[in-house]
Amino acid sequence: MNCAMLYSDKSITIIRENQKMLVPCGIPYIFGKTLGDIDKDAMACGGNNPILDKIEKLVDKVKFVDIDSKTLTTTTQTISFDKLIFATGSIPFVHKNFQQSLNLDNVFTIDKDYDHLANLKKHIDKTKNQKVIVVGSGFIVAELATEIASINKDVTIVGGSHILAGSFDKDMVSEAEHIMQDLGVKLQLGEYAQTIIEKNGKAVGLQLCDGKILEADIIILATGYKPNTSLAKDAGLLLTKYGGIWVDEYMRTANKDIFAIGDCSARRDFITRDPSKVMLASTSSSEARVAARSLYSISTLKGFNGTIAIFSTMIGNRVFASAGITEADAKKENIEYVVGFFQGQNRHPSTISDSAKQSVKLIVMKNSGKIIGGQVVGSKEAGEMINIIGLAIESDLTAYSLLSLQVATQPLLTSAPTSYPIVQAAQVAIMKSSSL
Amino acid sequence: MNCAMLYSDKSITIIRENQKMLVPCGIPYIFGKTLGDIDKDAMACGGNNPILDKIEKLVDKVKFVDIDSKTLTTTTQTISFDKLIFATGSIPFVHKNFQQSLNLDNVFTIDKDYDHLANLKKHIDKTKNQKVIVVGSGFIVAELATEIASINKDVTIVGGSHILAGSFDKDMVSEAEHIMQDLGVKLQLGEYAQTIIEKNGKAVGLQLCDGKILEADIIILATGYKPNTSLAKDAGLLLTKYGGIWVDEYMRTANKDIFAIGDCSARRDFITRDPSKVMLASTSSSEARVAARSLYSISTLKGFNGTIAIFSTMIGNRVFASAGITEADAKKENIEYVVGFFQGQNRHPSTISDSAKQSVKLIVMKNSGKIIGGQVVGSKEAGEMINIIGLAIESDLTAYSLLSLQVATQPLLTSAPTSYPIVQAAQVAIMKSSSL
Repeated sequence: MNCAMLYSDKSITIIRENQKMLVPCGIPYIFGKTLGDIDKDAMACGGNNPILDKIEKLVDKVKFVDIDSKTLTTTTQTISFDKLIFATGSIPFVHKNFQQSLNLDNVFTIDKDYDHLANLKKHIDKTKNQKVIVVGSGFIVAELATEIASINKDVTIVGGSHILAGSFDKDMVSEAEHIMQDLGVKLQLGEYAQTIIEKNGKAVGLQLCDGKILEADIIILATGYKPNTSLAKDAGLLLTKYGGIWVDEYMRTANKDIFAIGDCSARRDFITRDPSKVMLASTSSSEARVAARSLYSISTLKGFNGTIAIFSTMIGNRVFASAGITEADAKKENIEYVVGFFQGQNRHPSTISDSAKQSVKLIVMKNSGKIIGGQVVGSKEAGEMINIIGLAIESDLTAYSLLSLQVATQPLLTSAPTSYPIVQAAQVAIMKSSSL
Repeated sequence: MNCAMLYSDKSITIIRENQKMLVPCGIPYIFGKTLGDIDKDAMACGGNNPILDKIEKLVDKVKFVDIDSKTLTTTTQTISFDKLIFATGSIPFVHKNFQQSLNLDNVFTIDKDYDHLANLKKHIDKTKNQKVIVVGSGFIVAELATEIASINKDVTIVGGSHILAGSFDKDMVSEAEHIMQDLGVKLQLGEYAQTIIEKNGKAVGLQLCDGKILEADIIILATGYKPNTSLAKDAGLLLTKYGGIWVDEYMRTANKDIFAIGDCSARRDFITRDPSKVMLASTSSSEARVAARSLYSISTLKGFNGTIAIFSTMIGNRVFASAGITEADAKKENIEYVVGFFQGQNRHPSTISDSAKQSVKLIVMKNSGKIIGGQVVGSKEAGEMINIIGLAIESDLTAYSLLSLQVATQPLLTSAPTSYPIVQAAQVAIMKSSSL
């Protein structure tokens, strides 16, 4: 779509395998009360958007890409191209212990495929009192389990040390765990899943590392994704550590006519510069904009400079949002940091009827004061507050620059101007770093 | 409070005239259904905050400040100081045509005084079917009139060309006008108030410039504020064009032991560098932090660099938020600009139950791409989205830097990642400026 906006004189074709496309982030909400219907999660493709309508959409499978001759072969035809963008996304990552169980008809991944998910939904809706186990601890797990609990299923999460451990420190998300338990989700954290127990061609239980066995009618493996790059590999493109297609900051492969964006591209962490496994639609969208603007010339310095892993989720009526590095990861990466934490109210005065607690944790480099991470817990407004922190991280801002930040505050919408939590957390971090 | 946090070895005293302090931004909500009670708008002073408890609070009136001897004289005592911060705020500005009517017992300003406002509330609540006229067109006017309408009073706004004209272009707030009318507020815009008509020592009506007379039981003049600086003037401090106390970027007057912050200080516009009349608690809080950190030494470069006039308000269930310069002002100031506008949904997919329209307008410098203004209309999240734009303005960011911005998006909280309105508006602005 970005290309169609920029290059009205070019012919643009999207080739995809599925007719029906889903909004990826909306998938968990198909299974519970929020959407409750897979077709409500349909992606708007075209419709009344004249820009999208200018793009040719081909439902077909690409079998082979020949970079030298600049052609690709689908099941039905051979197409030549001037520029090619790989946006082949990701496929579920399944641990080798479980791979052979994938053929059982009650073991599922969260593949972004309409028919697969429709089948999962049918299984979940089939009978009452089913025991559903969700393996993993990321945001899809948290959202999915909470949705499934909302329609009164017996649902258990089997996952890591704490929920959302990749993006949040435990101090910031223990509230999420309590809410999930209040909503009926059972948490089996800290003990990893070991084996799926089969009987008569069906999964009947899940054995944990400590030997404990949990009964199961449905097992959902939501243990992450890996880049979908077999086509790129066959075409001879360079793949990196976690399997993503190597690209530069302008999303170009070594061949300047071939680009890769989204989950199939190799990513680096914005802060640590290490290879990153983070897969988020927001990151992909940013990469898409950069690729579109770099397709025929470098038009904007600089391009995509690494993922800041920025995301948000809602558990019950509370929002948990994170950007950049966590405190746990800062420790692991041997980064010298200080933490600024502040808790206040999201309205002022606190007598406003929907006033609720709001917390901000900032991870700040000890010497430079540079903001490298942030976590926000609050009501729905936290979903945009994290984007303030994200902008600060991406713009290399320091906690010092937030001291004189002017923020709009309003009784019905925000904290008081004197206790705006992002600014207050920055102040705390500065006071800590200067007293070290 | 900032001083108390930073300088635990200093003795800090606040001298104020009133025992009871109100949350200034909460004042409009006293009069309608939102708070409905003046005491619900009380400012928390101390309570369980140990930092606030360390500050001595003196309720007294300062009669004179002697800068040379570093002493001040109140009605009861003389106090010496090392450092003095003027934070004397503002008092209502009333046009000369109406000044003599202020002694009538049914003509009011929105003075931030407990007894004055309690008296106004008593007048409004007294009888049914009262005709209330609110003169002005700023956010206090909009919030106050909507609140008064919520308790079924006949309320009319007499003001400028359109509501919130100082901070919004008409295209962005005509929705606010329609909502206010739906909520029962009558709008008499475009014709200015000329004279208050008196009868038997009471105001009975308001005559407009075109001769039209509106009947009134209560007239509220909410036509802005002016710096409260008589004490500073008597002390010999320099006052500037609009009456504010001259200060540098560290909030110091010409005397480095005397500071001024908040509405009593002279302000400049961040973009135009012109003297500014903008008075916002958020600006004042930023100045307070800068002053506190600059009290004994310059600890952080740079200080307060002009107001970006950032604020938000809620009319009905819609939020209107603005930062920086409007398109109208950019024209007036002869700034070369382009506008980026984008309208989308604040949830994705739009089948999410509380999905609503969300619009962003960015004002961008034509050549440099620098973001100099933004307006957001949406649901409550718009209250924090404007702070993203504010941070971009204050950090001298360009629309180009927003192209690769990574934003957290989530179905229940934000737009889709592919149509995040701030980024899309930046894209539109860039495409316009490059085609000029």
